[in-house]
Amino acid sequence: MEKIAIFPGSFDPFTLGHQSVVSDGLQLFDKIVIGVGINSAKTGLLPASRRLDLIRDLYREESRVEVCEYSGLTVDLARRVGARYILRGLRNSVDFEFERNMMQVNQTLYPELMTVVLFTPPRYVALSSSFVREIHQFGGDTAPFMPAGIHLKNYLK
Amino acid sequence: MEKIAIFPGSFDPFTLGHQSVVSDGLQLFDKIVIGVGINSAKTGLLPASRRLDLIRDLYREESRVEVCEYSGLTVDLARRVGARYILRGLRNSVDFEFERNMMQVNQTLYPELMTVVLFTPPRYVALSSSFVREIHQFGGDTAPFMPAGIHLKNYLK
Amino acid sequence: MEKIAIFPGSFDPFTLGHQSVVSDGLQLFDKIVIGVGINSAKTGLLPASRRLDLIRDLYREESRVEVCEYSGLTVDLARRVGARYILRGLRNSVDFEFERNMMQVNQTLYPELMTVVLFTPPRYVALSSSFVREIHQFGGDTAPFMPAGIHLKNYLK
Amino acid sequence: MEKIAIFPGSFDPFTLGHQSVVSDGLQLFDKIVIGVGINSAKTGLLPASRRLDLIRDLYREESRVEVCEYSGLTVDLARRVGARYILRGLRNSVDFEFERNMMQVNQTLYPELMTVVLFTPPRYVALSSSFVREIHQFGGDTAPFMPAGIHLKNYLK
Amino acid sequence: MEKIAIFPGSFDPFTLGHQSVVSDGLQLFDKIVIGVGINSAKTGLLPASRRLDLIRDLYREESRVEVCEYSGLTVDLARRVGARYILRGLRNSVDFEFERNMMQVNQTLYPELMTVVLFTPPRYVALSSSFVREIHQFGGDTAPFMPAGIHLKNYLK
Amino acid sequence: MEKIAIFPGSFDPFTLGHQSVVSDGLQLFDKIVIGVGINSAKTGLLPASRRLDLIRDLYREESRVEVCEYSGLTVDLARRVGARYILRGLRNSVDFEFERNMMQVNQTLYPELMTVVLFTPPRYVALSSSFVREIHQFGGDTAPFMPAGIHLKNYLK
Repeated sequence: MEKIAIFPGSFDPFTLGHQSVVSDGLQLFDKIVIGVGINSAKTGLLPASRRLDLIRDLYREESRVEVCEYSGLTVDLARRVGARYILRGLRNSVDFEFERNMMQVNQTLYPELMTVVLFTPPRYVALSSSFVREIHQFGGDTAPFMPAGIHLKNYLK
Repeated sequence: MEKIAIFPGSFDPFTLGHQSVVSDGLQLFDKIVIGVGINSAKTGLLPASRRLDLIRDLYREESRVEVCEYSGLTVDLARRVGARYILRGLRNSVDFEFERNMMQVNQTLYPELMTVVLFTPPRYVALSSSFVREIHQFGGDTAPFMPAGIHLKNYLK
Repeated sequence: MEKIAIFPGSFDPFTLGHQSVVSDGLQLFDKIVIGVGINSAKTGLLPASRRLDLIRDLYREESRVEVCEYSGLTVDLARRVGARYILRGLRNSVDFEFERNMMQVNQTLYPELMTVVLFTPPRYVALSSSFVREIHQFGGDTAPFMPAGIHLKNYLK
Repeated sequence: MEKIAIFPGSFDPFTLGHQSVVSDGLQLFDKIVIGVGINSAKTGLLPASRRLDLIRDLYREESRVEVCEYSGLTVDLARRVGARYILRGLRNSVDFEFERNMMQVNQTLYPELMTVVLFTPPRYVALSSSFVREIHQFGGDTAPFMPAGIHLKNYLK
Repeated sequence: MEKIAIFPGSFDPFTLGHQSVVSDGLQLFDKIVIGVGINSAKTGLLPASRRLDLIRDLYREESRVEVCEYSGLTVDLARRVGARYILRGLRNSVDFEFERNMMQVNQTLYPELMTVVLFTPPRYVALSSSFVREIHQFGGDTAPFMPAGIHLKNYLK
Repeated sequence: MEKIAIFPGSFDPFTLGHQSVVSDGLQLFDKIVIGVGINSAKTGLLPASRRLDLIRDLYREESRVEVCEYSGLTVDLARRVGARYILRGLRNSVDFEFERNMMQVNQTLYPELMTVVLFTPPRYVALSSSFVREIHQFGGDTAPFMPAGIHLKNYLK
């Protein structure tokens, strides 16, 4: 049976840290569906459609990665795409508590769904979308935090 | 002297996890006053009056539990109802740091007030009002997280 | 029904931090049984009998505090003395994880036993028996860490 | 290519918690090699050969689980059995820091080795081999913590 | 070469805890520039100009402390004032993870900048600007949390 | 006044991580005294005299670094060498709790002593003397964890 994992997040924007998790995840799963969560309450940096574009551009050559938008529960996304695994990257002990809670809630709602966790490599431990947004907002250079070949400015409008 | 504790929170909504803490607390205290904090800045799921209704319905038979609304400092609620104890449930190490800070601030403002902490049972460790709100918002089933006999939809309007 | 709690530990030696927890605990419980755990594997500073003497001297005037030695499971001590509560002091987030584990194991072995946690006051957060032993071993002054009127040297032989 | 993971540990003894991690891991990997680390410095409960026997008895029907003894570096075990993955179970935030350190050291020594982490289910979060040893030592009942059908006493001599 | 550190924050308001960090920092650095970050998105208690006034009043006699407002990246403030050090106070393990992330991001953007961390004294560990704001909002007494001689009400308008 | 810091530890052996802390510390202090703690209870890898040799060889050209052996309290070492600062490197949140406790105990014994903390760079976060000892013991290559030009085998006998 094909091993399908979802990799859910806001990805506003998708960073080098996310790319590292997907890259490792491809050694575990046959297919990874990156689920871009749309939360109308949050006004972020990139509109949802541009976040999807960025990820699609990045994985244009990788047929085992798919991208889609979702707005409901993560477990519903998993059911919709036939995934039995959630892939998550762990950076620090605060993340850990959050992810364990998510895992436990998800397991109550969809017991067959397994949460698989990979450690973020040390050099990306501090990297988060919110830091990238802040650096962009203040005119700093976001290039060191973005996947190679991806320029944030191309997705801003 | 009667041992009175307050159990403060937003309770939007009151969950199985809260019920577990109150249930254990009743073995320690003579009376527990559940204080529903009203924070005008936050727009939540249930209006304050309905959060109170939910808790009153739940403890209709338990004369040792009272419910009230409050909008100021927690220590002022304690003084108002004559409580010498604050009851709190601890889920994880992030909670821990937050609760210790609250304890220390409260002790500066009202030195006689003692913070008493009970561990949340493992099966409720991931359970929080915000998760219940999110599950509700996305059309998921909140029943597994609510006290027996309490249906969230009855309190929504 | 009388509310009896055990307060288990090695107490080698009993410090100001322990005293603070017992003092607060006496506002919650009718009786506190301080259980001095004897672990033959560890060679500590004070022999078990002297650790008991120290605590007995300290609580000579307090009829609601008892002291006893035990060498088995903590839950067995609780059963033996008729206690339904374990009293514990929490200092930091590392303590937290340890105590939650203990609570969960104890609850499997003796479901009616409730773990009640009090925060160590900020000024005693760093205080542990092992620090006192180390300070003593290197010739430092242990008085600032010991209960008033208790001199460590009186219990060394 | 066959996906082989090692699951290293002392397993003194193998518990319900370990069984849960292996069971989940079998949904990710084609083969799991349980590596029983022999550390001559530690004198534990079960001799190494009996720890292996216990695990072999448990997985007698599961051809995808193998057990072996090892005494060197974990990365050397991985190389020896041709594994590209280390499977680990995470219980709490203290575990988290330890496991991340191990991951980072292992990656320096064997960059192709990927650490895959699964969350321990909430009901086993407190369960550790050292607690089981302590319960056994003090005459408590270890059955609630051991895999079904495995009796610790059968492996003691 | 003169050792210049920036001490960045929102300081809404500057508290006893901040004062303690600056006071210790003056034993390490020749000059400390307190940078009051202006984040237009947040509506706080004190307007930026009044937060600066408060800090200036406090350090009127201390020529080695300067105060300025900034609205961009912290590393840009450091470059602008010629600082090679960022001074930070650490209260608890949640702070720790946040500060380490900041350090790592800052080091990517400005490798020569060193983050120097001092522990907040135990009695101020729970003290934060947000607690002071909350106490003020609910009519509590903020004096125990403010530097001697500084009255919050003088800066409110 | 000259700024002297002690950098205490077991340093069995001194690693790349320690070197990184000293290197950063030299930008803060005029002199750093590396104090090699001799704890007769622990049998480690290197005898004390060889640990000192290793550090002396490393800092042969750096007149601002001194090395000495000590066997008592850290605060007594600080007093002996006239240091007003303790320099410490922080790796993770477990370290954090330990270091804060040490700071608090030291401050009780020697109030003028200030603990100054630097973050370990991400690539050394997992690096500890005990990992190096373990890698050595099992025949692994310790070179990636040691300062450039320092070969562990030269100090073993």
